[in-house]
Amino acid sequence: MDYPNDQHPGAPVKAGIPEHGRIPKYYVVKTQIAALLDELGAGGLLPTERDLALRYEVARETVRQALRELLLEGRVRRAGRGTVVAGPKLEQPLALASYTEGVRRQGRQPGRTLISLDRFPCPPELAAEIGVERGEHVWHLERVLLADDERVGLESTYVAVERVPRLDVAFDPDSSFYAYLRDELGIAFGAADERIETVLATPREALLIGTPPALPMLLIHRISRDTEGRPLERVRTLFRGDRFSFTTHLSGRG
Amino acid sequence: MDYPNDQHPGAPVKAGIPEHGRIPKYYVVKTQIAALLDELGAGGLLPTERDLALRYEVARETVRQALRELLLEGRVRRAGRGTVVAGPKLEQPLALASYTEGVRRQGRQPGRTLISLDRFPCPPELAAEIGVERGEHVWHLERVLLADDERVGLESTYVAVERVPRLDVAFDPDSSFYAYLRDELGIAFGAADERIETVLATPREALLIGTPPALPMLLIHRISRDTEGRPLERVRTLFRGDRFSFTTHLSGRG
Repeated sequence: MDYPNDQHPGAPVKAGIPEHGRIPKYYVVKTQIAALLDELGAGGLLPTERDLALRYEVARETVRQALRELLLEGRVRRAGRGTVVAGPKLEQPLALASYTEGVRRQGRQPGRTLISLDRFPCPPELAAEIGVERGEHVWHLERVLLADDERVGLESTYVAVERVPRLDVAFDPDSSFYAYLRDELGIAFGAADERIETVLATPREALLIGTPPALPMLLIHRISRDTEGRPLERVRTLFRGDRFSFTTHLSGRG
Repeated sequence: MDYPNDQHPGAPVKAGIPEHGRIPKYYVVKTQIAALLDELGAGGLLPTERDLALRYEVARETVRQALRELLLEGRVRRAGRGTVVAGPKLEQPLALASYTEGVRRQGRQPGRTLISLDRFPCPPELAAEIGVERGEHVWHLERVLLADDERVGLESTYVAVERVPRLDVAFDPDSSFYAYLRDELGIAFGAADERIETVLATPREALLIGTPPALPMLLIHRISRDTEGRPLERVRTLFRGDRFSFTTHLSGRG
């Protein structure tokens, strides 16, 4: 049957060009294991590599390659010495709302771990983006993002010291920066421009987030303005590509 | 100096935790080659692997690993037998506008190659999304997306036959589907929900788009409604992660 009507429309199409003879063996095994994941359901424990190799009559290396792709895609995750079926990716809205609000909306507990807070004279490229003169002081706040205590991302925020003078003493880095701006300084976000792309984590980033270095990440660049239209912050947030997806609602003519 | 003020704020942070001794050698070389790319500029030809290995005093395998990551990230591309500095990623707006309009806005020539057009009874999961009864006929239109004759993506569109009865005879698959809907059928888009994630291409997809199988891709799921609010189409579009980024403007409270 050549019609793709036996599968979910969000899944890759199987039909169209003949595949026999050109599909790598590991990919056939990957498809078989993916079907097994659906049967087991989220949290279910996979058979060992050795058992999977016996079941599908292939070499353990072939199973390993299939599992590696499923791991990179977030279909399975390591748990202790075993491998379990992962839950669905978190769906974070692309919105002015903060990371904190987005994660809470999905019933997860947001958290943050401070990596560094630095203060330095603003370099030229950043100056225009956050609306300061070159050389004026800016903060760089870097935090690991958590969801239910799992490390899921890494965020760098750049903001003028003049806008947030007491960031180093008055702000709890394990709380929401946006809530701090709103509640303590009366600053609210009016608009933001975002750009989203996929990148590979650097070794430092992989270490901080605790991911394998080859894991594809989603990188969001954000430049925000306050409700008066003044430039406010420049943010670079890296999210685990195996744990996150982003949603948006489009209306009118874009 | 521990401050990241010698670099672009969109670049990964270098400071914060000591890195000496734990950075893999290939990554040091990758950083050196990245600096060389900036000097050469888009289109510039890289020295050979052998010359790079001599220049940085490392094994050719180390250079190869560094180049492989730069290739996956779209910083370099193959051109004939050599490797050249790639231009910036295309910035496609997340908007109701079509792929065609988005690519044109960036001064590129959009194109499409038909892979398949099938008609089949609607499976249950798709039925709700495009507003038809299970078993009613739907079209599945699959096309490779081109920008300046380069294959950059693969798109599957699912739409009820009842909405677009003459799709197989009246529509030129190398033209814009949205323009066809608007100009021939008077159907315009009112709203859409999109979800964006990163995935690995399947072997079939990699073959159709002409990418290495391990290349991270950006996958956009779209469910659209017409201006009357009626469900219209379900689209699954895969874009080369090394060639595309997506932008959005956020305002008000999301």
